[in-house]
Amino acid sequence: MNFSNRITSMQESPIRKLVPIAVEAKNKGKKVYHLNIGQPDIKTPETFFESIKNFDENVLAYSFSQGLPKLIDSFRKYYKKYGIDFEQDEMLITNGGSEALLFSIIATCDRGDEILVPEPFYTNYNGFGNMAGIKVVPITTKAEEGFHLPPKEEIEKLITPKTKAIMMSNPGNPTGCIYTIKEMEMLRDIAKENDFYIISDEVYREFVYDGFEYMSFAKFEDIADRVIITDSVSKRYSACGARIGSIASKNKDLIKQILKLCQSRLCVATVEQIGAASLVDVSDDYFIEVVEEYKQRRDIVYNALSNMEGVNCKKPHGAFYIIAQLPVEDAEDFVVWLLKDFDVNNETVMLAPAEGFYATKGLGKNEVRLSYVLNQESLKTAMNILEEGLKVYTSIKCKCGCKCNK
Amino acid sequence: MNFSNRITSMQESPIRKLVPIAVEAKNKGKKVYHLNIGQPDIKTPETFFESIKNFDENVLAYSFSQGLPKLIDSFRKYYKKYGIDFEQDEMLITNGGSEALLFSIIATCDRGDEILVPEPFYTNYNGFGNMAGIKVVPITTKAEEGFHLPPKEEIEKLITPKTKAIMMSNPGNPTGCIYTIKEMEMLRDIAKENDFYIISDEVYREFVYDGFEYMSFAKFEDIADRVIITDSVSKRYSACGARIGSIASKNKDLIKQILKLCQSRLCVATVEQIGAASLVDVSDDYFIEVVEEYKQRRDIVYNALSNMEGVNCKKPHGAFYIIAQLPVEDAEDFVVWLLKDFDVNNETVMLAPAEGFYATKGLGKNEVRLSYVLNQESLKTAMNILEEGLKVYTSIKCKCGCKCNK
Repeated sequence: MNFSNRITSMQESPIRKLVPIAVEAKNKGKKVYHLNIGQPDIKTPETFFESIKNFDENVLAYSFSQGLPKLIDSFRKYYKKYGIDFEQDEMLITNGGSEALLFSIIATCDRGDEILVPEPFYTNYNGFGNMAGIKVVPITTKAEEGFHLPPKEEIEKLITPKTKAIMMSNPGNPTGCIYTIKEMEMLRDIAKENDFYIISDEVYREFVYDGFEYMSFAKFEDIADRVIITDSVSKRYSACGARIGSIASKNKDLIKQILKLCQSRLCVATVEQIGAASLVDVSDDYFIEVVEEYKQRRDIVYNALSNMEGVNCKKPHGAFYIIAQLPVEDAEDFVVWLLKDFDVNNETVMLAPAEGFYATKGLGKNEVRLSYVLNQESLKTAMNILEEGLKVYTSIKCKCGCKCNK
Repeated sequence: MNFSNRITSMQESPIRKLVPIAVEAKNKGKKVYHLNIGQPDIKTPETFFESIKNFDENVLAYSFSQGLPKLIDSFRKYYKKYGIDFEQDEMLITNGGSEALLFSIIATCDRGDEILVPEPFYTNYNGFGNMAGIKVVPITTKAEEGFHLPPKEEIEKLITPKTKAIMMSNPGNPTGCIYTIKEMEMLRDIAKENDFYIISDEVYREFVYDGFEYMSFAKFEDIADRVIITDSVSKRYSACGARIGSIASKNKDLIKQILKLCQSRLCVATVEQIGAASLVDVSDDYFIEVVEEYKQRRDIVYNALSNMEGVNCKKPHGAFYIIAQLPVEDAEDFVVWLLKDFDVNNETVMLAPAEGFYATKGLGKNEVRLSYVLNQESLKTAMNILEEGLKVYTSIKCKCGCKCNK
């Protein structure tokens, strides 16, 4: 039996495709430190679980396609803290930030259309692009420039009659880059001059370090009708398993259009919506503590990487990822080797090969993404394992990259 | 700002698009009996809620993209009761039956490909087709033939080089039709002879009345590699809000391909998966009671409709829907009128206009789908309101159909 071309040409998630190898390692009794996935170990606020426990309906019924009004209101209340006003009919609840992005693409682009995306980007953008039949056109950014954007004229060269939107995460996954207001104004101008939407993935809004200034695209009132904010409770409240995200836009007609997509999948899980609705009341102290904790983790990982021979990386100022260039030919081969053939005291570490975070062929092959989502002790151990692993791997691999294991 | 053509051309859900009018009616103090949506009032088994309450992890983490192993095992155990064997790597957990259908389409069809679907069909098939960029080619079935399939040669006429699959719900939504083994064998032969997949939506498996025989497409061993079973706990356990569905196929390579789609949206809501995993242990008595209850509801609705002047319908033997032809020009106009302008003791009834359940233009315009998902007393009242409403509506509407309200 044949499969569709679009599914066979779709890449496996570089974050998840090596999971079976990790499971195999674990089955052999090896401990694996997961730096491959953005799964924080921070406690989910108790109020989430309490709300779920208090659910006392007899029938677990469908919710509204646009989401529980109570949950939408909680998002609105949350945005108000940032000085952003959204009305009830300017928001939709989605199955995580993933569905929010997919629906935003479908509503703004027809098949064959193009979206400009700074690369490296969250690898699943490729998956959404594939599902929606659009082309992700990369705006290449470089580690040595802190993954900041190239000048306007460089970006304008990438525009074609098929370009419909600019999409980015800010703070950036996997780069940790926070765009400056100047960069955002440049993107705003490009969107205005070329009639583009801006799909702004802001799920790491809270995770900003070193006194950096962060601004939402929702703040640009002059392009309010072309800005789509996608969001999620996953990272903010360490509630990844809730799969609760949102789409917000002052363009009410657009929201009405996207509602049709929401209707076609009926609704988002009811119980998780009820849990998520309580999260807005989590105190601000929670974030102060959590952000401080992530900053310390970032420092551990960044300092360790900086001291490893042959490793290049820049200090990230947001989100909880870091892209590192390793002294290897093929980062995926190295990651597989760490899982299969290496351990320190029967422990090893798992990273995400970064090639899948690029759209430009050949880029990222010797890079990995690390998520600093584990506690500080675990991170220290993991970084030691990585350092040892790199030493052993680079000494046994033939310099010509032929994988002969000499 | 422009929207994509595919989103503007997408129909609103005929089941849900009139909800705002119903909400308006309710805000004015009117009670609305909802026969428009398949939302049962049957109690969700207590074990679901207990499992959720017993969830005691500190972190609400991502689940596996393919679904919690425990939940997959529970589905496997459930299928074993029907003599169907699926292995762990032959199943995926999805966001309801909706995502199971969408993913099955994407994995088997490229954009522009065609799928044969007996019509009337579950209206959201149009939505999935639209999102996937494929064409739903209707195999028209008729109320007077109990919505059974036309002869093989009629179906074969619809086949083109772009046809990739046959998709159907069995028992049927909205028809209540249960295909005979002969009909299923015919579809099997067509699939074999033309190298098609069969996407079999079997979410109403339990809801079979009058001693009718039901068989799953998973029983045809000779086409096991081309059969995809989509399923859901929504109707079976009155757990629509859980949004837990599944894809199962003996074609392991196909499952591996679809896993890439699952990875791109990370996972299904964790807590609801844990609740759903407990449902397999609900006793068989539960279904005996529930099915008997639905049978009695079916009888109330069918008998009432049969006695209404100008109404045509056939007795359905499965699922919990009935399609009825009304003595009106435009069923949607009638449904809106029931909500806006009619009541009996300040109560009214909401139905789903059936036009959106057809792909052939012009069909279903004077038909509605009724879900018999309310308790018997409510159904009796609702049927009285409908009968009264029909009398008043047909008397005030000008016979020429000009909507002058004379």
